[in-house]
Amino acid sequence: MNLSGQNFIAGNESALGQNSFHAVAAATGEILPTEFHMATPAEIHDATEQAAVARPLGLEDRAALLEAIAEEIEALGDELLDRAHIESALPLPRLTGERGRTCGQLRLFATSLRSGLGQEVITDAALPDRQPVPRPEIRRVLVPIGPVAVFGASNFPLAFSVAGGDTASALASGCPVIVKAHPLHPGTSELVARAIYRAIARVGVDARIFSMVHGAAETGATLAESPDLRAIAFTGSLKAGMALVKTSQNRPTPIPVFAEMGSINPVFLLPNALAARGEALAAGYAESLTMGVGQFCTNPGVIIGIASPALDEFTKAVTMKLNAVNLAPMLSGAIKSNFEAGVETLLASAGPELTSGSGCRFFRVTATEFAKHHALREECFGPAGLLVECQSEEELLEVAEIFEGQLTVTIQLDAADADLARRLRPIATGFAGRVVYNGFPTGVEVGHAMQHGGPFPASSDSRFTSVGTQAIYRFLRPVAIQNEPSYL
Amino acid sequence: MNLSGQNFIAGNESALGQNSFHAVAAATGEILPTEFHMATPAEIHDATEQAAVARPLGLEDRAALLEAIAEEIEALGDELLDRAHIESALPLPRLTGERGRTCGQLRLFATSLRSGLGQEVITDAALPDRQPVPRPEIRRVLVPIGPVAVFGASNFPLAFSVAGGDTASALASGCPVIVKAHPLHPGTSELVARAIYRAIARVGVDARIFSMVHGAAETGATLAESPDLRAIAFTGSLKAGMALVKTSQNRPTPIPVFAEMGSINPVFLLPNALAARGEALAAGYAESLTMGVGQFCTNPGVIIGIASPALDEFTKAVTMKLNAVNLAPMLSGAIKSNFEAGVETLLASAGPELTSGSGCRFFRVTATEFAKHHALREECFGPAGLLVECQSEEELLEVAEIFEGQLTVTIQLDAADADLARRLRPIATGFAGRVVYNGFPTGVEVGHAMQHGGPFPASSDSRFTSVGTQAIYRFLRPVAIQNEPSYL
Repeated sequence: MNLSGQNFIAGNESALGQNSFHAVAAATGEILPTEFHMATPAEIHDATEQAAVARPLGLEDRAALLEAIAEEIEALGDELLDRAHIESALPLPRLTGERGRTCGQLRLFATSLRSGLGQEVITDAALPDRQPVPRPEIRRVLVPIGPVAVFGASNFPLAFSVAGGDTASALASGCPVIVKAHPLHPGTSELVARAIYRAIARVGVDARIFSMVHGAAETGATLAESPDLRAIAFTGSLKAGMALVKTSQNRPTPIPVFAEMGSINPVFLLPNALAARGEALAAGYAESLTMGVGQFCTNPGVIIGIASPALDEFTKAVTMKLNAVNLAPMLSGAIKSNFEAGVETLLASAGPELTSGSGCRFFRVTATEFAKHHALREECFGPAGLLVECQSEEELLEVAEIFEGQLTVTIQLDAADADLARRLRPIATGFAGRVVYNGFPTGVEVGHAMQHGGPFPASSDSRFTSVGTQAIYRFLRPVAIQNEPSYL
Repeated sequence: MNLSGQNFIAGNESALGQNSFHAVAAATGEILPTEFHMATPAEIHDATEQAAVARPLGLEDRAALLEAIAEEIEALGDELLDRAHIESALPLPRLTGERGRTCGQLRLFATSLRSGLGQEVITDAALPDRQPVPRPEIRRVLVPIGPVAVFGASNFPLAFSVAGGDTASALASGCPVIVKAHPLHPGTSELVARAIYRAIARVGVDARIFSMVHGAAETGATLAESPDLRAIAFTGSLKAGMALVKTSQNRPTPIPVFAEMGSINPVFLLPNALAARGEALAAGYAESLTMGVGQFCTNPGVIIGIASPALDEFTKAVTMKLNAVNLAPMLSGAIKSNFEAGVETLLASAGPELTSGSGCRFFRVTATEFAKHHALREECFGPAGLLVECQSEEELLEVAEIFEGQLTVTIQLDAADADLARRLRPIATGFAGRVVYNGFPTGVEVGHAMQHGGPFPASSDSRFTSVGTQAIYRFLRPVAIQNEPSYL
């Protein structure tokens, strides 16, 4: 594996700064050899300046580029998966799946571009005889907003990273992209940046449409402040996301930020479903909660049921399943420490825990306690679940009213639960971006109908999604063309 | 005319506060009799709290309500026009036209709702046999974002006010509305609020969907901070708009703000068009510049041409036309003072003026001077125009590169100008929300294709419009419904 540790600036490699860092093997803590150079403000501004003057890509070039990137990523073969595995501790089968998703979404944007995605035109025809004045023809088209900064996420080294959904949707929209690589997987990021460089060369488009910089939070802030930047896409914590929102609002020219900032993704167990299939629900919940060591934005951190023998059985079954889970290491020591701090909060407000030994954590509180402690409704990023026990259907609906904005809400129901579900539905729809029936929220489909983003604090703008083809609309703005002469 | 001067809170009238103000006759400065009560924080929070729990309106109720509001406004007859005329000094024919536009856009939203506006659904069908896991059906629908605050504009007492485009689009989306009435036309606002109350009663929908409060900037800030508010729509100055953006970002739950903040709307005169029809262009420009005493967001404050005898002729013709204009009074003393301060700035950087006597102001500067002084590129709200004289086509393109975000840009051209226009077009499209060919930017069509909003500082979010049917999308957010059982 031959890594340069440099920044990828508009077609070149660059290492002008004095500051550097090393990647760490997530499973062992071993410091890996390559020295990664943090980008300097000059390099970052160079990247955005060059992006702003890059030659715009036509539609077919965009589609061809997205496909070429997918091919070049696949051509990296096991080298990419091995490096991602070392940097993230995520198992190879998961990373293989994530690579499939990454290349799949690049190709989905290519196919969708060829079918008209993001090219919708609305025309009000001319009315030359209208009184008192004629109406000119007005044609509303969509144009790229300009250079987009993409902040890679810690938990998806491929699918929400250098060539992830944000980059794919921004390139599809015709916007140049400057990626801030996540410092937890700089080597994986470099390999993917090289793949993008190769794809750009193959398709023969302007190399200034893509850059990737290494660094920490200050690097990100410098990027967010770059005068030529026109939008930001981010996936990560509430704190880091809101820092970017503030930075963007304090620019001389404020720019839109789409920050997907996580969620506790409540799951409601309606009583008839619970009585009929508690065992299967327990297995499904435990699997969803521990998948990827619980390191998903859509991790179902809270589950709500009504006190009953079936709920007791469910609790026991979940606890047993969780005790038997063989957890992989977390993505980093810092993420593990944050998780442990979150567990301390749960212990203080909801403890004692029901689980023991496996590293998965599971707690049970009354609805009254849950309502009382805001800390119980904050994301604890990792494999920790909280069961909220209600005394009645009314109390379950009251609990539903408590939630702030969420990426997802899940309702487990049977036909006999329909009346309660009909009362729960408007409350659930009111706080979430996705409503899942009889499933679990992990496993976000990449399609045309997906909404990944929800009311604050799940995301900074509930009107957009960061997953699926509709994510392109974050980076397009309408222009009305009035009375354009035919000779143009 | 029987005005109560009260606030309209969720179906009731209310005057709990101690602070009040009087409307002023714009033409004479006379203080009008009714005492208008500024809303207290308690009244404002009551309005938003009640809005948040109002029964949602079905589509047909929304359409019927919008139509009923139009009818009730028309039923106010001359009383409304007379009051608006006294409060704004705008001539009756203009106000008659503005009432037509106001009722027209209410009805356009009703018709469009019945044709599916804002109800777009995207479905990814279930794939039960997909490997390795089945795909559930996912259906993406749009839901109302929640209570919307609408800030009435000074310059359109009807069309951008209590029942203007923002209110029409918000009600069409299914969102409750709380209007902050503009203090320059509180009586007009009360009449329209009464019309809305009557329409709500006639259609029989929940009265909590509409409130209107009186007050000053602090009233607006209190409204913007109301916990139950979910979005803000504003038309006015850069300063007031950005204050609302900051307030909304500092809320515990930040909310989206669409602020349309004005523009200088450059007009480019390409040389062949100028040579062929300079006289007509001068007449058109002078008319557009002085329409409504120049008090339009789309007022063409800057016009750019290439030095030539034709440009000299054009300058002379515009000056003569402007000297002959009989200006109506401005909307208020404060707006007049601001205009005069803006003219002082122009005199300092671009003076001396070419016009004399009529109150219209016209200046001419070199491109070099224009590039040097940022003050020349700031909006001067009123009938003041600045001609920028370039030495060459290249310099005209350089001037085009200088502009910050604009609501509109206009290109006057003939077929022989096509080459230059093709070079200008991408620059113009890059900074504006609407590109007008061979017309003038005033007279914003209300249709499906209109874009009124542009890159900052023209508006706070270039991805949305505040005029036309697409304005509804500011207030809708997508929700993905996954695997919903048929029995629900």
